[in-house]
Amino acid sequence: MREGIQSYINRNKSTIENKIKHYISRLEIPERLKSSMAYSLNAGGKRLRPVLMVASFEAYNESYEKALTSAAALEMIHTYSLIHDDLPAMDDDDYRRGKLTNHKQFDEATAILAGDALLTYSFEIISNDPLLSNSQKVHIISHLAKCSGPAGMVGGQIMDMKAEKQKVSIEELENIHALKTGELLRFAIHTGAYLGEASAEELVYLDEFAHYLGLVFQVQDDILDVIGDEKQLGKRIGSDEDNAKSTYPNLLGLEGAKEKKGLYVQKAKDALIQAKADQSYLMDLVDFFSNRDQ
Amino acid sequence: MREGIQSYINRNKSTIENKIKHYISRLEIPERLKSSMAYSLNAGGKRLRPVLMVASFEAYNESYEKALTSAAALEMIHTYSLIHDDLPAMDDDDYRRGKLTNHKQFDEATAILAGDALLTYSFEIISNDPLLSNSQKVHIISHLAKCSGPAGMVGGQIMDMKAEKQKVSIEELENIHALKTGELLRFAIHTGAYLGEASAEELVYLDEFAHYLGLVFQVQDDILDVIGDEKQLGKRIGSDEDNAKSTYPNLLGLEGAKEKKGLYVQKAKDALIQAKADQSYLMDLVDFFSNRDQ
Repeated sequence: MREGIQSYINRNKSTIENKIKHYISRLEIPERLKSSMAYSLNAGGKRLRPVLMVASFEAYNESYEKALTSAAALEMIHTYSLIHDDLPAMDDDDYRRGKLTNHKQFDEATAILAGDALLTYSFEIISNDPLLSNSQKVHIISHLAKCSGPAGMVGGQIMDMKAEKQKVSIEELENIHALKTGELLRFAIHTGAYLGEASAEELVYLDEFAHYLGLVFQVQDDILDVIGDEKQLGKRIGSDEDNAKSTYPNLLGLEGAKEKKGLYVQKAKDALIQAKADQSYLMDLVDFFSNRDQ
Repeated sequence: MREGIQSYINRNKSTIENKIKHYISRLEIPERLKSSMAYSLNAGGKRLRPVLMVASFEAYNESYEKALTSAAALEMIHTYSLIHDDLPAMDDDDYRRGKLTNHKQFDEATAILAGDALLTYSFEIISNDPLLSNSQKVHIISHLAKCSGPAGMVGGQIMDMKAEKQKVSIEELENIHALKTGELLRFAIHTGAYLGEASAEELVYLDEFAHYLGLVFQVQDDILDVIGDEKQLGKRIGSDEDNAKSTYPNLLGLEGAKEKKGLYVQKAKDALIQAKADQSYLMDLVDFFSNRDQ
């Protein structure tokens, strides 16, 4: 019998977390820096990006050990971005997932340096991965740097700061999300399939899949914000504060946002069929992303 | 006639700055991020690290084009570290080299992101350097990540924050500097010679050279602080504030520090002879580092 998606996620999450622990434990560095890096890495992330990478590998090949170091590196990059995003000068958040943010648990200077350290270390572990050829390492490092750097995630972050202060069009909103969160999802899906030896044609369709999966992810995020607000805060949709922020529900209404999401789910699944990956867990992950309640 | 060291530095500085400009100009990213990255890259740095890399290449080979992208990447890493060091949560500096620091010219969030972008982009440009083989790229990326990451520069930065609040021994002081500034100097010297095809034995001696050159650099930094303070501020050596800080003059006295520097200069030159690089500009750079007045 086929394993359920939640069990699949949990099992791989655990494998990935062990790999991350391995890489942190072997660091011989000042204790405070190590604690700070480990604190945020172990702060209960969903590990969606590395799980996607593993599922993408398994859509084309067996024994995904080859993808684990890259998956750990990706989670380090994601974690560094959260640490820096939470800083007082950025989103100024005191809590994330119910725990103190890094700069509240330690201090701002330590949080900045822990982020820098995680970002740098992610490239180090890929460049020393004993399971990859030099050509594979270079391909992955180049792609990761592109997706997470100024023309990727960091660029999206700058644009997002601006968009938080003014209403933008749906096209601009999608462009920001494509950079800020979409690029790392794209890296996850591409790298898994690349290491799993998908064909060039399949990789092109997977790229399309990643694009729509990223949009599904973001629409659902915005929908959860609205539902969460209504349930938990008794706040009505359409308050002044909400209106100032560019979200799918604000731009399209709640029903419009749900329709949009359904469309993106279908497009993601169509791309998976073209990529000959529709029998894989990637298919289940689309529905999981679309229906998640947190 | 052999070119003088100042002319040699100026000529290479200009070549390196053109390479950096090339890499920034081709970025298609949000204007504010690009301006912020360019602002600090163009803020009048001495380019000592990339010049060292070029000189190290030329100690063993001709036509140093092969080292230029790595040299530009190294300067980007150095620049990112300065941007983050200057932040209010770290050293809280408003000016650097007579210009506003990045977060004063832009804002804190932009400065954090510009630093992140430069760090990430440095790995991207090495991984796409058309003049290097995959094996060379992996070697350089692995080394750069190690030297600048948690077990290198970032680790030294954490230790330095602690040392600023208490007096430490000369051994601890040298350990901090070895990480905080020494590792990137070591990377510069190693990478230049590695690309210039120095032998394994020569690389070992160059590593020793780099170690002592880093110490020369640091002692002179501390000496300049004292002399600068006396000249510019009329402040006497030995004020309470000065005493709290761990520096060579505080730990050894001004004359003791100068003696120590002379010893390190000699050791650096001895290592260069062993590395068969004593006819190169590296030899002149030792004296330049030792005698610099800014």
